[in-house]
Formats: sequence, C-alpha cells, structure tokens
Amino acid sequence: MKVSAHTSPRSVAGAFAGDVRQHGRAEAYVVGAGALNQAVKGIAIARTLLAEQGVDLVCVPAFTELLIDGEQRTGIHLVVEARDGGPDGGDAAAADAQPPAAAGAEPPIPPGD
Amino acid sequence: MKVSAHTSPRSVAGAFAGDVRQHGRAEAYVVGAGALNQAVKGIAIARTLLAEQGVDLVCVPAFTELLIDGEQRTGIHLVVEARDGGPDGGDAAAADAQPPAAAGAEPPIPPGD
Repeated sequence: MKVSAHTSPRSVAGAFAGDVRQHGRAEAYVVGAGALNQAVKGIAIARTLLAEQGVDLVCVPAFTELLIDGEQRTGIHLVVEARDGGPDGGDAAAADAQPPAAAGAEPPIPPGD
Repeated sequence: MKVSAHTSPRSVAGAFAGDVRQHGRAEAYVVGAGALNQAVKGIAIARTLLAEQGVDLVCVPAFTELLIDGEQRTGIHLVVEARDGGPDGGDAAAADAQPPAAAGAEPPIPPGD
C-alpha cells in the first residue's frame, strides 16, 4: 500500500485494519513527511478500531529505498501488525522487518534532514 | 521527550535507545508532520541500534491533546518499547520470534551521537 500526503488517515486506517484482520499484518511505503503523517495517523485510528477486538496493534518503521519515476528515493517502510505477531506467530514478520543494514553498517540517513 | 521538525533523527534515536535500555520504554510527543517525520526516522535508527542487542523495538502511536503556548493542539504520542515489553506480556510470541540480529556475534554498542 502506498500512502501519499493526500490520502486520508481514515481510509489508511480502514485498509490497515482490513489487512491485519485478513492477513495478520499490513504494510505501507511512504516518501516524505506529509505522507508519513497521514500513515501514522491512520495507524493510530486502526489501533483504536482493532483494540475493540482485543488486537494490540504496533508499528515497525524502517528505512527503505524506492524507485519512483526512475529516481531513487529514501522512504519509510511501515509494518503494522498485532504486538504478538498475529496468527502466524510473527516469525515471518520479524524476518521481514529486519533492516538490510542490521549487519553492522551505519543506518542509512537521508541527506538534508 | 519533545521532538520538533529541527531535531535530528540521530539524536532522537540516541535518546530513544537510552530510555528503552534504562526504563524499558521511551515516549515522545510530536505536533506536525515535520516533527513526526524526525521522530519516526529516529525510531527506525533506534531499532537498528537495539536489534544488535536482541531487542525487537516497536512503536505505538496515539492521538493526544497538547497545550502549547496556551493553545490546544492535536499531536501524536509515540510509545517506543520492546515488542514483548507491553501490557500484554507476550512471552510465547517473544520466544517464537527470532530477534533480527540474534544470528551475529555481539557487536559493540555504537556511539549514541
């Protein structure tokens, strides 16, 4: 799922909650502060939606490189899932969430922040 | 901890990682997309720092009302903690999940600049 600065947090929340219910997790790629803002607001709303069903929703952010219109951009990859990893126990999610730079390299910092 | 649009993600990460090591959790209040952007980048960096120690860091966002200069503003409250460190415990899931950096040797803690 891609979230832009113009995506409403409520629709983000609905998509996140639906994916978590169906697949145990949701994920989004965002580039820019405006898009991230909408995505995190969406997570906050999805959290209240799923709390009613006893799901303790958490978020795992990581840097990611995206190719947009042929240009490489640094974005944020957000994994949204139940704290206990959902019905699958979380193994796959934990493996997916491992950032590529975990082997000891410096975390990628986008220039100019 | 308050994070502004001018706080560097690296200093946010150092503060988050320090608080999680000492107190088991960290939290931040942010208002505005720019501040949230820096905070989430900081969480992504703190996550790689703590992954080396086997900590699977997650983030819990929620809306909050803040009084700033006598004016009520809606902001985001971010709780940052180990996945198994929440109110639900989650011991079984934590035992199943493989910490991202568990496979490697224990590297020295990077300087928290």
